[in-house]
Amino acid sequence: MKELLIKQFQNIMNNSSEEDLSIISKWMDGFEKKQSGEMSTYLSAGLHMERSLTDDSCTVTIPITPFIHNNLNIPHGGIIAVLLDTAMGVLANHSLHEDLAAVTTNLSVTYLATATEGHLHAHATLSHKGRKTIVTTGEVTDDQGRLLAIGSGSFFVIQRSR
Amino acid sequence: MKELLIKQFQNIMNNSSEEDLSIISKWMDGFEKKQSGEMSTYLSAGLHMERSLTDDSCTVTIPITPFIHNNLNIPHGGIIAVLLDTAMGVLANHSLHEDLAAVTTNLSVTYLATATEGHLHAHATLSHKGRKTIVTTGEVTDDQGRLLAIGSGSFFVIQRSR
Amino acid sequence: MKELLIKQFQNIMNNSSEEDLSIISKWMDGFEKKQSGEMSTYLSAGLHMERSLTDDSCTVTIPITPFIHNNLNIPHGGIIAVLLDTAMGVLANHSLHEDLAAVTTNLSVTYLATATEGHLHAHATLSHKGRKTIVTTGEVTDDQGRLLAIGSGSFFVIQRSR
Amino acid sequence: MKELLIKQFQNIMNNSSEEDLSIISKWMDGFEKKQSGEMSTYLSAGLHMERSLTDDSCTVTIPITPFIHNNLNIPHGGIIAVLLDTAMGVLANHSLHEDLAAVTTNLSVTYLATATEGHLHAHATLSHKGRKTIVTTGEVTDDQGRLLAIGSGSFFVIQRSR
Repeated sequence: MKELLIKQFQNIMNNSSEEDLSIISKWMDGFEKKQSGEMSTYLSAGLHMERSLTDDSCTVTIPITPFIHNNLNIPHGGIIAVLLDTAMGVLANHSLHEDLAAVTTNLSVTYLATATEGHLHAHATLSHKGRKTIVTTGEVTDDQGRLLAIGSGSFFVIQRSR
Repeated sequence: MKELLIKQFQNIMNNSSEEDLSIISKWMDGFEKKQSGEMSTYLSAGLHMERSLTDDSCTVTIPITPFIHNNLNIPHGGIIAVLLDTAMGVLANHSLHEDLAAVTTNLSVTYLATATEGHLHAHATLSHKGRKTIVTTGEVTDDQGRLLAIGSGSFFVIQRSR
Repeated sequence: MKELLIKQFQNIMNNSSEEDLSIISKWMDGFEKKQSGEMSTYLSAGLHMERSLTDDSCTVTIPITPFIHNNLNIPHGGIIAVLLDTAMGVLANHSLHEDLAAVTTNLSVTYLATATEGHLHAHATLSHKGRKTIVTTGEVTDDQGRLLAIGSGSFFVIQRSR
Repeated sequence: MKELLIKQFQNIMNNSSEEDLSIISKWMDGFEKKQSGEMSTYLSAGLHMERSLTDDSCTVTIPITPFIHNNLNIPHGGIIAVLLDTAMGVLANHSLHEDLAAVTTNLSVTYLATATEGHLHAHATLSHKGRKTIVTTGEVTDDQGRLLAIGSGSFFVIQRSR
C-alpha cells in the first residue's frame, strides 16, 4: 500500500501549483506533529491549532491559509465555529474532574468582520459552571486584535467512557 | 522544494499507523479532486464533501473518519457547523444573481446526538429570502436518518467583488 | 386599600385616550380569566394567550395590540420570544411525566418580518426528546400564514418541586 | 363605556386575592407613568422598566413580581428575552442618527440560573457597529449580581419611517 501512496503523492506533486505545494507542506508539518504526539487530533494538526490554557480562559490560534478558505476566498464561517467550539470545549473540559467530559449542546456564532492574513485567535471564558451544564462565551480576533466574531457555547457534562 | 516534500512524505509514511495511512490516502484522494477541479476548495476536498442542490434545498454529505474526530473520538461539533454552514451558504448563494454573494452573519447549532460511522448529511432549506438578508434552517442526520443536530443560519447579501 | 385602588382607577379613566381605554378593557378581560382559572398565569392573561396542544405540537396565539408594541409601533421582539418560549415550553412539559418539569436553557430567535394587525401565532414542534434534555423548534406567523420569525429552544429536565 | 369599565373593575376588586390586588396596584402605577409620558410604551410601563443609558452600555431593570412568572412560579424565560432585547435595542438605536432605527434580526439567550425576588437587571454592550448591522451582547443579573442569563442580539439598520 505504501508504494501506491508514494506514487500517488508524486503524481500530486507533479500537478501542484505553488499554492498547492504550500498547502501540502503545511499539511505534512501538521501531520508530523500528530505523529509525534504534539497534536492530539488529526483536525487540530490539519488546522495547526495552538492552544494556551489557564483555569479561566483558553485561546486557540490557527494561521489563515487557503486551506480554510470558502468560495469567496475568506475563512470559512464553519472554521471559525470549529475554532470557537475548540477553545470553549477545551476550557469546559479543563474545568471538570478527569472522569467527566463536556459535550457541546449549543453553539451560536455571530460574524462581524473577516480577515485575509495572519492568524485567527479564538478566546473563550467561562460564564457558568454547573454540576450538569457549563456555559462559555468566546470571541475571535485577528492579529491586530480586531473583533471578527463572537459566540457562546453550552455544554452538557457526561461521564467519560473508558 | 519538491524533493524535500517527497522526502518528508516518505518519512511520514515510515512512521504511519494503519489509521494514519487511511487518513493520508483519503486526504490525497480529496486533493486530487481539488486539482482536477471536481472540488472547489481545499476544505471541501479535505472533508470529501458531496453536494446535492435544488432551488429549494441543499444537502452536503461527508464521511465520518478519524480526521474529523475531537478528543472524545466523535465528530467535532465545529465540523458539524462547517457542514451546516456550507449547506446553508451554498443554498443562499444559489438563490442570488451571480453578481451577489451571501455571507454568514449568524450561525446557531443545537446538538442532539452523535454518530461514529457512515456519513454526516446536512440538509438546508430556505426560510426567508429578502433583498438584503437570507435566512435558512438545516438539520444533520446520519445514514439511518437519525437527527444529530439542527441549526439556523442568517446571511447578509453583498455585491460580489471581482 | 380597595377604596384607594378604585379611586386611582377612576383617575386613570379620566386621563385615558381611546387607545388607553382599549388597553384597559382588554387587560381587565384577561384579568378576569386569570381570576376564573381559565388562564394560569398573569402574563398569559395579560397577553390573551390561547393555546392549542397535541402530543406533537403546540400553538400559542395572541392578538396584536398596542400593549405589545415597541417604540417603533411594531410588536416587541421580546414578546415574540415570549410567545415562542411559551409554545415550546408547554410542548416540552407536556411530553414529560407530571413529576418532571422542563426549564429553558437556550432560546434563539431569528426575525424575518413584522405584522401590525391580527394575531401572532407561535407553532412549536419537538425535535428531540432525551431523558435529560428536550429540543424544540418553532415558527411565528401572522393571520395570513406569513412567516415572521423562526426559533429553537433547548430545555433541561428537572424534578418538579412540590 | 367608562361606566362599564369602572363596574368591571369593581367586580375584579371583589374577586381579588392579596396577590391580585398587588398586581393591580402595580399595574396602575405603571399605567399612570405611561399616561404622564414617563414611560414610552405600554409594555415598559406594564413591566416597570427603568433604564440607564450611556454611549457604551444600557441597563434595563424590572422588579420580579408574580406578573412575570411562568407556571413554575419563576420569571418567564421570554420576559428575560424582552429585557435583553430592550437593553440591546435601546443601545443599538442610541448609537444611530435619529433618522435611522435598529430592528432585531437575531436574539439568542442562554439561561444559567433563576431568581425569585428583587429585580432583574439586563446590561447590554456594543460589540460591533457597522453601517448596516449592529451587534450587541448582554447579561442579566439579580440584585446580588449573580449571573442569570447571557445573550446576544443582532440588529439591522433601517430608515426610520415618519
